[in-house]
Amino acid sequence: MIKVGIVGGTGYTGVELLRLLSRHPDVELTAITSRKEAGLRVDAMYPSLRGWVDLAFTTPDEANLAGCDVVFFATPNGIAMQEAVRLVEAGVRVIDLAADFRIKDIAEWEKWYGMTHASPQLVAEAVYGLPEINRDAVRTARVVANPGCYPTAVQLGFLPLIEAEAIDPASLIADCKSGVSGAGRKAEVHTLFAEATDSFKAYGVAGHRHLPEIRQGLAAVAGQPVGLTFVPHLTPMVRGIHATLYARLKKDVDLQGLFESRYAGERFVDVLPAGSCPETRSVRGSNTCRIAVHRPQGSDTVVVLSVIDNLVKGAAGQAVQNLNLMFGLPESTGLEIVPLMP
Amino acid sequence: MIKVGIVGGTGYTGVELLRLLSRHPDVELTAITSRKEAGLRVDAMYPSLRGWVDLAFTTPDEANLAGCDVVFFATPNGIAMQEAVRLVEAGVRVIDLAADFRIKDIAEWEKWYGMTHASPQLVAEAVYGLPEINRDAVRTARVVANPGCYPTAVQLGFLPLIEAEAIDPASLIADCKSGVSGAGRKAEVHTLFAEATDSFKAYGVAGHRHLPEIRQGLAAVAGQPVGLTFVPHLTPMVRGIHATLYARLKKDVDLQGLFESRYAGERFVDVLPAGSCPETRSVRGSNTCRIAVHRPQGSDTVVVLSVIDNLVKGAAGQAVQNLNLMFGLPESTGLEIVPLMP
Amino acid sequence: MIKVGIVGGTGYTGVELLRLLSRHPDVELTAITSRKEAGLRVDAMYPSLRGWVDLAFTTPDEANLAGCDVVFFATPNGIAMQEAVRLVEAGVRVIDLAADFRIKDIAEWEKWYGMTHASPQLVAEAVYGLPEINRDAVRTARVVANPGCYPTAVQLGFLPLIEAEAIDPASLIADCKSGVSGAGRKAEVHTLFAEATDSFKAYGVAGHRHLPEIRQGLAAVAGQPVGLTFVPHLTPMVRGIHATLYARLKKDVDLQGLFESRYAGERFVDVLPAGSCPETRSVRGSNTCRIAVHRPQGSDTVVVLSVIDNLVKGAAGQAVQNLNLMFGLPESTGLEIVPLMP
Amino acid sequence: MIKVGIVGGTGYTGVELLRLLSRHPDVELTAITSRKEAGLRVDAMYPSLRGWVDLAFTTPDEANLAGCDVVFFATPNGIAMQEAVRLVEAGVRVIDLAADFRIKDIAEWEKWYGMTHASPQLVAEAVYGLPEINRDAVRTARVVANPGCYPTAVQLGFLPLIEAEAIDPASLIADCKSGVSGAGRKAEVHTLFAEATDSFKAYGVAGHRHLPEIRQGLAAVAGQPVGLTFVPHLTPMVRGIHATLYARLKKDVDLQGLFESRYAGERFVDVLPAGSCPETRSVRGSNTCRIAVHRPQGSDTVVVLSVIDNLVKGAAGQAVQNLNLMFGLPESTGLEIVPLMP
Repeated sequence: MIKVGIVGGTGYTGVELLRLLSRHPDVELTAITSRKEAGLRVDAMYPSLRGWVDLAFTTPDEANLAGCDVVFFATPNGIAMQEAVRLVEAGVRVIDLAADFRIKDIAEWEKWYGMTHASPQLVAEAVYGLPEINRDAVRTARVVANPGCYPTAVQLGFLPLIEAEAIDPASLIADCKSGVSGAGRKAEVHTLFAEATDSFKAYGVAGHRHLPEIRQGLAAVAGQPVGLTFVPHLTPMVRGIHATLYARLKKDVDLQGLFESRYAGERFVDVLPAGSCPETRSVRGSNTCRIAVHRPQGSDTVVVLSVIDNLVKGAAGQAVQNLNLMFGLPESTGLEIVPLMP
Repeated sequence: MIKVGIVGGTGYTGVELLRLLSRHPDVELTAITSRKEAGLRVDAMYPSLRGWVDLAFTTPDEANLAGCDVVFFATPNGIAMQEAVRLVEAGVRVIDLAADFRIKDIAEWEKWYGMTHASPQLVAEAVYGLPEINRDAVRTARVVANPGCYPTAVQLGFLPLIEAEAIDPASLIADCKSGVSGAGRKAEVHTLFAEATDSFKAYGVAGHRHLPEIRQGLAAVAGQPVGLTFVPHLTPMVRGIHATLYARLKKDVDLQGLFESRYAGERFVDVLPAGSCPETRSVRGSNTCRIAVHRPQGSDTVVVLSVIDNLVKGAAGQAVQNLNLMFGLPESTGLEIVPLMP
Repeated sequence: MIKVGIVGGTGYTGVELLRLLSRHPDVELTAITSRKEAGLRVDAMYPSLRGWVDLAFTTPDEANLAGCDVVFFATPNGIAMQEAVRLVEAGVRVIDLAADFRIKDIAEWEKWYGMTHASPQLVAEAVYGLPEINRDAVRTARVVANPGCYPTAVQLGFLPLIEAEAIDPASLIADCKSGVSGAGRKAEVHTLFAEATDSFKAYGVAGHRHLPEIRQGLAAVAGQPVGLTFVPHLTPMVRGIHATLYARLKKDVDLQGLFESRYAGERFVDVLPAGSCPETRSVRGSNTCRIAVHRPQGSDTVVVLSVIDNLVKGAAGQAVQNLNLMFGLPESTGLEIVPLMP
Repeated sequence: MIKVGIVGGTGYTGVELLRLLSRHPDVELTAITSRKEAGLRVDAMYPSLRGWVDLAFTTPDEANLAGCDVVFFATPNGIAMQEAVRLVEAGVRVIDLAADFRIKDIAEWEKWYGMTHASPQLVAEAVYGLPEINRDAVRTARVVANPGCYPTAVQLGFLPLIEAEAIDPASLIADCKSGVSGAGRKAEVHTLFAEATDSFKAYGVAGHRHLPEIRQGLAAVAGQPVGLTFVPHLTPMVRGIHATLYARLKKDVDLQGLFESRYAGERFVDVLPAGSCPETRSVRGSNTCRIAVHRPQGSDTVVVLSVIDNLVKGAAGQAVQNLNLMFGLPESTGLEIVPLMP
């Protein structure tokens, strides 16, 4: 059994990790930490876990994290970069669900996240955990930077087109819609039910932290910088990201065939039949990304629709997928979940 | 492997059966019928099942239902009573998720359902599939009448009180709230999104078909007729029933202890700590019923809060629980699902 | 023009007062205070008010409240009892939308609200502003205690039955469902969208602050103490209260006729045709209470369904109705609003 | 008083017309027709109108539409084109809320709507009722083609940029999100609550009927054909359209100033301060369009955010605005409504 610890398990990615790991056949959950809630039973905070998780939150000091095989950080940005070094030096592998190790350019990271980075050397070493691109590197990684939710949906949608050099990478548009769980479980006015329900709005139009992450990922594939306009929106639903992607075609390709062949062997990417429009609920609770590609009215603008569950493929599920790779397990272990519909 | 057929699988209880059975380790799904959708792939109607269910809908004639070990009826009321006899005679066991075999008093059934019953003899034989009461009878049943959603939540809530003769059975009140999926997948105006969201209403106050079913079940336990006022309400959520039950205490009992001991061995009934209020989402997607018992302000009115997922413990999940009993499997096989939260 | 001030206008009752008063033909809005937001334009916080409200929040000191004809307190409990005396002495009339002046029994109030009351003498003088009971007293009141949301819906529902001595007042049950806006605009985890949507739960079963308020109001009508079990529930909708009321009939009365005649002259109480079930959305944004009365299955249990918009008839609208009474205006001035449906 | 008739008033645009017209000071509502519901009181179908609308539905034959000053068609496409001629010839002015008179190119209309047009001559005469462009022509029109919901939000968003020749009209993108009420009140599976809530999807990507309408409107302003990629999405909310518009800047302009000056005199277009993101709920129930303009990261892609209430500015409200113009009333008569928030 793989000994697993979770740092900072009180948020939505934390409880989602617990949902997945409590049913994972090769994992033994040994500790979950929260300074604020130390002593509280996990299932007192999350009654959905009654009967499934028998742990109480502990302080990081009480938890013997150094005795784990792998530790997940489900913490706010800026925590893992301080605490991971010690664990890595103790031989513990680390999967960070926050953004601390995602951006290779330290200055760029510091600009967007407003902090001085505490572990530039771990950033250099860390593997960006998007298995559909970096599968082999993940297997041997000591530190995995688990991708953001928007970046997962957007990169998987643009990837086949960029690899095939079918589009102009200078003028990409990603119009993204996220469920409210993406904002986390912090008490804030703008995500109250009475504020966020029955309404729709854009946010972060001037600049969102996922923008440099997406640009870095796509540029690596394109072999050149990409121009991206990224507009996220808040949608009155709990889970789900819907990315609507626009790009200018540079050449005439069989779009459907391109996507189907690129993702033919991928367990967690499902290319829908031509003409389809994926619903976010079709992946609710599962680690699948469903994608459809369109060329409306025969113009030179290609439209890609890409949906994920932001808490699963966009966070905790992808983290478990990375864990499976790191420990030589079948990639879908513990992730064989049929989406909940309706 | 148990060969399973499903008759009428296009509604929500049908797709929910597929979600559960596609992951059930001892089941082989051999046929799913729909006259209207015959020929259509199931996952074309329900993209959430892509990769999980490889069947297409067939007509009942094409499907070799007589070759199944068990057949689920996920049909409207009035179908199973016509088709079950033939299957039972062929040695196939039947689980009806509709109401055809629930009410023992044929005249009463015909009054509430507005039809002449086609198989009174099967009604006499059928076992009411509430395992927490009828577990042993279900094991050997040829025909199981799977309980309704409201009746499951209400009976499990009143049961310990009535068995202990702690309340007056003549003046029970069940104020019940259901998610909209309980109304099924029929195209009707009153369950349109723009009609049902952001609003709340009672319905069926004068009389709802689940009233006689609840009365029959509680009377059997009480050993006398019960008086019940049952008011169902439509709630703007997808899944979930919340039953708020009121009764007059006849004697002073340790309510918390009573409930905990009654359900101590039950895998799918969870009695919450004293003072708790269960949320419907704490059972979303799972077969669990969570219950809390209160005695507000020390008065002689006891209040029981009972929540289930109407499509799981209130329909498809309970049907699978019954299948497990009928075929000698551990009762929770295929039902080890952590609720989806948030 | 009536000079109006609002103390504490940043919450939902505050913005709702602004929605109503900005269109009230006889009102001049002179000041709205908020210590925390002083200097901020109201329409920067509430863009829905752009073009309608030209004020900025001010501190209470800057606002010349003593120069107003009437001041609304849309503050948390415990503020008005400290600040109202000074205004009343200056000749300003006061309408408190919080609970400071609702409970006549000071000890009872202090028990439920956990504070020492600062103005017992104003409590004695204050008029409970439920116009359908206290219309005449409101006209001349210096201080009006605007009723709570649940108490409005529950009292209007039980009132005709108690006045007619048709029910046993010792065993009343009020099963109430509220939209999430009733919890206010405070940043709290349990009212986040991702916590409160697509779920349903009871709360405050052991005791809710509106219980003594309802008991006091009904007891005054009954001329004797009443026994009430009150269970509030949180419903995934923004606005609306649905009270489902249960009582035991003591005599045979024409229930429909009783309700219709009691409310015949009431502009803001609408008795629905026999057999109806009111939806909360049928009063959305309006000051109307819609009521239906049932006697299911001919039993001796009467069921009353009563719906209001908690922010209008349950708060700001009723406060404007009281203002109209206090200043000799037609009772519906500024409240001629067609509910928003869908 | 202006005598008004409504043909086909059972849908959402019909009930919304009734909400607005029942409070319009210069209008007398004389008839509302529905073949299917003839004889039914309007407020029996829509209890929100109890006390406001005293009419019953009548058949078109019973209704003396020829005696009206103006008739609104709130019918499905294809009805007004058959019935309007007779009314126009009788001197009745017509406002069609459907699409019958919107597209000047008859062949184009017939291609998109799949019908032979019955009144090409009325199409030629009809005025496209977007007051912010065609105000003067509307005043004298006999037939007004009330714009579609998406076309209103999209055209008002692109208009200043195209008039100023600031963008390349060949590569416009309109990523639009609509509430479910836009699909109408027809009983259909895909707009059921349990299908449409808590999920998000695109639809009509290959081609939506509002595409030619938008293209026609923008081309008229641009003086040349426009290239437009239009992707509509279904959003789990009742009312509201959010258009996110993308275009390539051809020259450096003061975007904020451009929008503010273009709409300076417009009562129903509100340009938000720089950096804002409008919420759909900020216009709920009102006739206002709120717009913000952005240039993210200083690139040459301009992003416009435009929100309306699809049933008001996108349908019934704009129709009343047109009525006011046609009859020489102040443009906002009957439309002075503060948005409902929350």
